[in-house]
Amino acid sequence: MTSRTIIEVPTSGYHDLQDLTPRITAAVRDAGIQTGIASLFVQGSTGALGLMEVERGLARDLPEMLNRWAPPSEEYAHEQTWHDGNGHSHLQATLLGQSVTIPVAEGAPDLGTWQQVFLLECDIRPRKRTVVVTVIGD
Amino acid sequence: MTSRTIIEVPTSGYHDLQDLTPRITAAVRDAGIQTGIASLFVQGSTGALGLMEVERGLARDLPEMLNRWAPPSEEYAHEQTWHDGNGHSHLQATLLGQSVTIPVAEGAPDLGTWQQVFLLECDIRPRKRTVVVTVIGD
Amino acid sequence: MTSRTIIEVPTSGYHDLQDLTPRITAAVRDAGIQTGIASLFVQGSTGALGLMEVERGLARDLPEMLNRWAPPSEEYAHEQTWHDGNGHSHLQATLLGQSVTIPVAEGAPDLGTWQQVFLLECDIRPRKRTVVVTVIGD
Repeated sequence: MTSRTIIEVPTSGYHDLQDLTPRITAAVRDAGIQTGIASLFVQGSTGALGLMEVERGLARDLPEMLNRWAPPSEEYAHEQTWHDGNGHSHLQATLLGQSVTIPVAEGAPDLGTWQQVFLLECDIRPRKRTVVVTVIGD
Repeated sequence: MTSRTIIEVPTSGYHDLQDLTPRITAAVRDAGIQTGIASLFVQGSTGALGLMEVERGLARDLPEMLNRWAPPSEEYAHEQTWHDGNGHSHLQATLLGQSVTIPVAEGAPDLGTWQQVFLLECDIRPRKRTVVVTVIGD
Repeated sequence: MTSRTIIEVPTSGYHDLQDLTPRITAAVRDAGIQTGIASLFVQGSTGALGLMEVERGLARDLPEMLNRWAPPSEEYAHEQTWHDGNGHSHLQATLLGQSVTIPVAEGAPDLGTWQQVFLLECDIRPRKRTVVVTVIGD
């Protein structure tokens, strides 16, 4: 069995971090699949998906680390062509990743207690993100 | 067809790195699925899963790099709330990732010769890790 | 339904970056699966797979960042055993990742407009890379 759900996520701008777990859980429950996997994917090249304990401290720490790993800068070759100020956004999203696969058990995501799925906006302006949830299993 | 196996992995503490390939191979063989994928997932927010040639040198180099990318520090906002000394553990696990999907062919993981699946303990104390192996295919 | 396709990708050497999207799209179309996922995997421990807008600027920026995150160096413990000059190649590939799962809709990869799948050669010499595309769904 295969189920596909689209989740629309408006973001407020650079490094807005949102816990998607409740909406993903709802999508998985609606799929009616008991055992299998849920593939999560964010469309676009400047949004990131990942797994983390989503709490206020780490929601500040992770963006700060990303600013060290791939700092905002006008020196990127990307800037010299596009002049859109978001070269670091692309690099941050590629580093963190845009696809995550989680297990499904008893019709729900089988995550750890303090483990959530987050969307991190890496672009420098508000965006409307599209997250595709595909559930496959029995 | 869908098969689900739980692998319990006790770890010895910070940056214990273990090659899970033999146990994953056994789980895939037991699944009786010839062609498809195996989704691997570690529960909890301070353990990481990845792909690497697991040899003694890299088993030292990777933890050392992680200590540069997200160094142990009391400066993390996470620490200011939780005071549990593992802010960097969360960041390292999120950076490296906690889910990996590998192909299955002829009933076994279809990895390169020098390519293994590892679990890296990023927490600062021994943990008992749960890895979920979901095999899907024909 | 499950479909498996092998894509052979010769690379020209260190940090050759190739857009695999056209060949992956062809593999997904040939699979005849309308809705589901495509699991992408590169065999070997010194090649990386990821998602990015593949344009000339970022194709220079990403390798440059990787040279900062895990610089070429003879100091790695890997070198002290193997003396093959590619310790950083392993670390870069593990950091960026070697497996990506993308959604499939209407028989094609369901990516964003400026979002492509790339292969990045991290080894220090030309290689012949094997990418496994597994499509699962209905």
